[in-house]
Amino acid sequence: MSKILWKPGTMIYPLPAVMVSCGATPDEFNIVTVSWTGTICTDPPMCYISLRPSRYSYGIIKRNGEYVINLTTKALAFATDWCGVKSGADHNKFTEMNLTPVPGEIVKAPLIKESPVNIECIVKEIKVLGSHHMFISEVVAVNAEKELFDERTGAFRLFSADPICYTHGKYYETGKLIGKFGFSVKKKKV
Amino acid sequence: MSKILWKPGTMIYPLPAVMVSCGATPDEFNIVTVSWTGTICTDPPMCYISLRPSRYSYGIIKRNGEYVINLTTKALAFATDWCGVKSGADHNKFTEMNLTPVPGEIVKAPLIKESPVNIECIVKEIKVLGSHHMFISEVVAVNAEKELFDERTGAFRLFSADPICYTHGKYYETGKLIGKFGFSVKKKKV
Repeated sequence: MSKILWKPGTMIYPLPAVMVSCGATPDEFNIVTVSWTGTICTDPPMCYISLRPSRYSYGIIKRNGEYVINLTTKALAFATDWCGVKSGADHNKFTEMNLTPVPGEIVKAPLIKESPVNIECIVKEIKVLGSHHMFISEVVAVNAEKELFDERTGAFRLFSADPICYTHGKYYETGKLIGKFGFSVKKKKV
Repeated sequence: MSKILWKPGTMIYPLPAVMVSCGATPDEFNIVTVSWTGTICTDPPMCYISLRPSRYSYGIIKRNGEYVINLTTKALAFATDWCGVKSGADHNKFTEMNLTPVPGEIVKAPLIKESPVNIECIVKEIKVLGSHHMFISEVVAVNAEKELFDERTGAFRLFSADPICYTHGKYYETGKLIGKFGFSVKKKKV
């Protein structure tokens, strides 16, 4: 193996490609897809999204101080891409993608019903970085699809929802299971 | 579809599981695996990792103000898990996992030679959040495996390195390609 030195860039992958829903009233509801997202703290549960100020959703989220992160799946791949390319200034994304806004538990922003996991977030700070501003947020509620809980064990099987990831400009399905966290130190059963 | 309200938690997935290498001298070199990582700004390229202060690497990164994010693959899955479970206080992780530290371009922290992409980072701010502190960082160099560049087109094919992701406690391979960014609006060729 030998390496080529590349210019500094954004090369952390695979990433999620989440649909962020926002707006306090139906006429304001919008969706923007982002991969600049992740968990920043376990306790309290905190996460972020980074957005360009030119995005239509930027003003909506800044104004309301809240949004919802909706995980995406193979079935939602087309809508995921489309909501990242098109602007809410020109389109009603819920209507055009046949997505259903449903009320959240805490925030006014709608959950996307067709997504298996909806994470309700409240903005704590907006950090101006450069092309993107980071919305540092607290997770205030998580809504998870009932059918994905194992009836016997109660375990949540996100894999069964066919989650997708975004890697260097392309969307991929999730592949084969390699192992659980800690598999490298697990003692084999005799 | 119907939803169950869950307690607030860390449910953004799939995520990368990166090996973070740190240390300014060979006796200080260490590796810690994190999934609380991502891109926070495109221009300038910025990223973060979040760590518990109790992690052995926390002090090393705080002291030196720099680290390297090494992307992980199917071939590195065992080492990825092991470096997330074990502590550098008790183990020389490079030696025990047969990983090779090689000099970076800008930072003193070593690159992991066996990783296909090494992202050199300089810490700009440490944000105390709760269980985890976020290292807000600037990407100062990216080193990418030569063999992954397409000879004809020059395109970088990260997929060929078998990148892995971490989803709700489990490691998975990357699956089938769904489409490129923008596929939902691409006109079909006649």
